[in-house]
Amino acid sequence: MILILPISSYSILSAQSTKQKVFEKYKKVADSIISRSLSEQKGYEWLKELCEIGPRLSGSENSFKAVHWAKNKMEELGFDSVWLQPVMVPKWVRNNIETAIVSYSKKYKGRKLNIASFGGSIATPPNGKTAEIVEVKSFDQLKILGEKIKGKIVFFNRAFDNSLVNTFEAYGKAVDQRTQGAIEAARYGAVASIVRSVTSRKDNVPHTGVMYYDSLITKIPHAAIGTLDADFLSRAISEEPSLKITIEMNCQNYSDVNSFNVIGEIRGNEFPNEIIVVGGHFDSWDKGCGAHDDGAPCLQTMEILDLLNRLGLKPKRTIRCVLFINEENGLRGALEYGKYADTVKVKHLAAIEADRGAFTPRGFNITSDSTTVKKLQDWLPILNKAHIDWIRPGGSGGDIAQIKNAKAWFGFVPDDQRYMDLHHSDNDTFESVHPREMQLGTAAMAILTYLLSEEGL
Amino acid sequence: MILILPISSYSILSAQSTKQKVFEKYKKVADSIISRSLSEQKGYEWLKELCEIGPRLSGSENSFKAVHWAKNKMEELGFDSVWLQPVMVPKWVRNNIETAIVSYSKKYKGRKLNIASFGGSIATPPNGKTAEIVEVKSFDQLKILGEKIKGKIVFFNRAFDNSLVNTFEAYGKAVDQRTQGAIEAARYGAVASIVRSVTSRKDNVPHTGVMYYDSLITKIPHAAIGTLDADFLSRAISEEPSLKITIEMNCQNYSDVNSFNVIGEIRGNEFPNEIIVVGGHFDSWDKGCGAHDDGAPCLQTMEILDLLNRLGLKPKRTIRCVLFINEENGLRGALEYGKYADTVKVKHLAAIEADRGAFTPRGFNITSDSTTVKKLQDWLPILNKAHIDWIRPGGSGGDIAQIKNAKAWFGFVPDDQRYMDLHHSDNDTFESVHPREMQLGTAAMAILTYLLSEEGL
Repeated sequence: MILILPISSYSILSAQSTKQKVFEKYKKVADSIISRSLSEQKGYEWLKELCEIGPRLSGSENSFKAVHWAKNKMEELGFDSVWLQPVMVPKWVRNNIETAIVSYSKKYKGRKLNIASFGGSIATPPNGKTAEIVEVKSFDQLKILGEKIKGKIVFFNRAFDNSLVNTFEAYGKAVDQRTQGAIEAARYGAVASIVRSVTSRKDNVPHTGVMYYDSLITKIPHAAIGTLDADFLSRAISEEPSLKITIEMNCQNYSDVNSFNVIGEIRGNEFPNEIIVVGGHFDSWDKGCGAHDDGAPCLQTMEILDLLNRLGLKPKRTIRCVLFINEENGLRGALEYGKYADTVKVKHLAAIEADRGAFTPRGFNITSDSTTVKKLQDWLPILNKAHIDWIRPGGSGGDIAQIKNAKAWFGFVPDDQRYMDLHHSDNDTFESVHPREMQLGTAAMAILTYLLSEEGL
Repeated sequence: MILILPISSYSILSAQSTKQKVFEKYKKVADSIISRSLSEQKGYEWLKELCEIGPRLSGSENSFKAVHWAKNKMEELGFDSVWLQPVMVPKWVRNNIETAIVSYSKKYKGRKLNIASFGGSIATPPNGKTAEIVEVKSFDQLKILGEKIKGKIVFFNRAFDNSLVNTFEAYGKAVDQRTQGAIEAARYGAVASIVRSVTSRKDNVPHTGVMYYDSLITKIPHAAIGTLDADFLSRAISEEPSLKITIEMNCQNYSDVNSFNVIGEIRGNEFPNEIIVVGGHFDSWDKGCGAHDDGAPCLQTMEILDLLNRLGLKPKRTIRCVLFINEENGLRGALEYGKYADTVKVKHLAAIEADRGAFTPRGFNITSDSTTVKKLQDWLPILNKAHIDWIRPGGSGGDIAQIKNAKAWFGFVPDDQRYMDLHHSDNDTFESVHPREMQLGTAAMAILTYLLSEEGL
């Protein structure tokens, strides 16, 4: 037996004992949190109510209904404070026309294509835009074609790379076609552009999302097309390069309108001025019902407060649920909350964001200093009860990143294999959320929140 | 800097460097395996073909079709050897009648109930069994009721405990009602018994499975009932204790018939006599199409061999895929393979079983000595590329447990939150399998298999 150990071994032993202590101290409470969350499935029931309202695009009537639904729910649940934080948000409306049809072709004339306008796109003229198609897979290819693009409809057809394990990485490698495509196509004189949906699924459901214009470049209509129709179109124009399609869209941009972040909190009984924020973005795209993106995750964070109440746990620090409005096409809610936090000098201890769907839990990303990350890794055995297998340095989330003065920012990371099947599309329905997966994630975040409240950082 | 370290630190450092070495040596091959598996989705395509045959209950015509489909597929794929290993299996046929109806009640007469005979159950007489219902939640309760059970239909209504994280644990705590229920009910004179389906889902789909009789106790018909109908029935008999139901089933037991394990292998080029078995059970229940249980996992293990071939990887040791027949109601295929291995003295290095669905990968259970387990844990960083987050001592699987002389037995552990929704029921369809989840699991098992082949144990 060796009694005198070098420092490295000391620190290993001390880490072991901290892990063990935290585990012993919180194992019972963790078990109760998990068992109540899984058996009562309250958040999942709320999700059903929320989805019945419909999708919640910023500025839409549904979004206001949802805001008030959430405020009422928080009040019913007896949170210590509940309030709405006003914020101006953009308003874009899809309207009732978005069609694409093969209008000139020997073989395919009349064939319809499933499209969905991207959020922020301008409309086509009333009778649509008719033009030949040019298929490209990159902006470089577009540049090489240059003048040949003029008067055409650009068809961005770079596929989601299913060979990658991380679906967010695959998404990141294809989504520039959506965000920048209209700018790049118009730069060379295109009259409209369509983009292969950024999805892991072969179906015909178009996936919408945010897009940008450049104030110095002509604005053109810009829409998503389902992956099966993208495959069809690619084949069809290789057979008949002179094939034309007609796209018609009547979506519309409006002036900003007033909306709200929904905020509710339960006050800490020892350090009420130290705030732990938990939340997600409450707006969604106007397809499906925004169940995974980001309805269920919002309700997971809302249920954290209620779970602690149901279990009679009085947190030492204040736990605040912030449902940020307008993450999808503006981040206005998060910016507003960040500004308020700066101005009022809110003392944030930590913030946890849930915006990667409500699938089975895998880990937490943390943005913090290395000492804090190490401390937090000692909590892994207790979090592991809710199937959190790792805690790693990494990005947390766009909304809570606007909170400048916290000590640690967490991103909840559920499994991501199914997420891009449904993201921003009609596939993102209540039925796509699994109650046990959702409720296990709720439990994981509730345990982390409670540990933060009791142990501090 | 400390140059002389106590043994404990030595071993930590040496473990670190082994992990690193294994990681560096295999990272490229692991990336190729993952990327080919995810992008080509071959196993998932095979699953579609397999599911088109239908469910594969031992002894059924479909099971023979499936056996030949698998043999042909292995031959087409160019495995070095492909053969069928004969084995006698039980034969039970559900037939066309399984109905339950409320036959005596003021309020509910005529209300139908969704039932499914358990595998091995005897039939009712031609006009069914009509009797009052006694609801119980445990065998102890049944014992207390004793004589009052006589002439009644016992309704076992202990629910799947959704508060538990591990769905296999929840399953284990309820499934005795199915396996032993007919024996216990008949012990006190019941004329039939029905069991609340052992499932995490509230729907009306009954879940079948194996059941047992005791040769000294009268055999009675025994069937599952959907959870919604179980809830209804419980309410109805609390309102009207004299309510009667009539159950009719015409299922039938036959003599054993001849069937086969399907075996295919690619031969090792250095140690061809050292065998690594990968496999699952190829039979299923006769509900749904046995997609998760255990079709997809079988095809995952089959694709391991093909993936190595596609990538031009020549394993040092022989990799043998064994698709065991009759795990569900007899384990005959595994027993036969075990006997053969004993007799012929096959030198098994290791065996990997996949029989927990084809969901997203989480870890591997290992049965082995502690030195081997430690060695295998050094492989975690490389397996982590395919989202294997842990390697732990634990049970491997019922089929490979019949192989007596291996050095290590592995159970592939995918996420289990959705499994008991569909297990042994009409919910277990092709559509319930997600291609990326399945193919990531294939990659995880392929990497482990290749490491075993190259590194030995």
